[in-house]
Amino acid sequence: MTAKPRFAVVLSGCGVYDGAEIHEAVLTLLAIDRQGGTYQCFAPDRAQMHVVNHLTGQEAAGESRNVLVESARIARGNIKSLAEFDASQVDALILPGGFGAAKNLCTFATQGPDCTVDSDTEKAVKAMAAAGKPMGALCIAPALMARIFGDGIDVTIGNDEGTATAIEAMGARHTKAAHGGVVVDKGHKVVTSPCYMLDSSISQIADGAENTVKALLQLLGR
Amino acid sequence: MTAKPRFAVVLSGCGVYDGAEIHEAVLTLLAIDRQGGTYQCFAPDRAQMHVVNHLTGQEAAGESRNVLVESARIARGNIKSLAEFDASQVDALILPGGFGAAKNLCTFATQGPDCTVDSDTEKAVKAMAAAGKPMGALCIAPALMARIFGDGIDVTIGNDEGTATAIEAMGARHTKAAHGGVVVDKGHKVVTSPCYMLDSSISQIADGAENTVKALLQLLGR
Repeated sequence: MTAKPRFAVVLSGCGVYDGAEIHEAVLTLLAIDRQGGTYQCFAPDRAQMHVVNHLTGQEAAGESRNVLVESARIARGNIKSLAEFDASQVDALILPGGFGAAKNLCTFATQGPDCTVDSDTEKAVKAMAAAGKPMGALCIAPALMARIFGDGIDVTIGNDEGTATAIEAMGARHTKAAHGGVVVDKGHKVVTSPCYMLDSSISQIADGAENTVKALLQLLGR
Repeated sequence: MTAKPRFAVVLSGCGVYDGAEIHEAVLTLLAIDRQGGTYQCFAPDRAQMHVVNHLTGQEAAGESRNVLVESARIARGNIKSLAEFDASQVDALILPGGFGAAKNLCTFATQGPDCTVDSDTEKAVKAMAAAGKPMGALCIAPALMARIFGDGIDVTIGNDEGTATAIEAMGARHTKAAHGGVVVDKGHKVVTSPCYMLDSSISQIADGAENTVKALLQLLGR
């Protein structure tokens, strides 16, 4: 491992209703930087499921946006296509939440436990697991981990019963967690935190991101 | 004043190259919440100057987006049109930066010291000044304050000579500031901080936002 732990942050667009949740994404980057790590953002180069007008909450019919291009807004242009992801170049990976994680990185938002995972996302997660490197997932992103691993993986999405049931239908185990709380599956080296799956203040999101990064650093022996 | 100081945060879109700088905006909200304030986001309901593809840095020709609708992404939908702004309902106002502040809230990006200010933005800033309430401006947003006040107002945009000269051409005084630094003009009750006008880490942006909010609370006698 290099002097500073290197984090990959996988974004799913830019905006809670059709992309990455912006507060979770930014506060993940802040937590990594504050705790002495470096980060590189990634996103899949594909069309978003759809575009949502965040003022009205309604779908913007006829509009189309690209996940990588919109994610670049959060990353200030410093982002790579997830197709270029190389697990040997990072020490840990984090998936912030937002509907984008369940609409663009997998199809959980529309298909629940029958969802499929975006191929670049699945490859990146499996490569990290094969390398024995830890991963974090915030908000609804743990659904992805449940779909990929099943196998009794222990995750949290907070306390929403319906979502927890769907997560368990994919073979995962769901553990409730409160504001800022994390669930650590040491076997899978996966850390999850509910963030905006709970009705939260932005400070509580900062806590969740910080505690996730801290748990990942512990798994890295830091 | 109510028990908790109430902040208005004026956004200019969503993304550093054509809207509000996302890190500055989110970390302003975090700083307000962490320091015991409440916030309400606002943005002008008008078309952006243009749309920039943040992956390539090139203008997305033919695309059009609305400042209020895109700003709603940062605010998770909880945002009001700046036309509805009422200075009697808030204690302080903050303008995060990003090119949106110089492209959508005023025309400084294209017209420099000859710029004009968006009418809703100018009305809100003047109403706050008339009420004797403090305001903060990050990054390039101090250009707006220079245009509206002139009158020797003391501001900082960091240390960029060309921008400082343009600011002074509008009748303001420019004081250099470093990472996380703030310049406080007590007469005008205006606090400015360079943020991404300097080559900064995200932790330094968090410091700048935090110090701006602290200085505003001091001006409020908190």
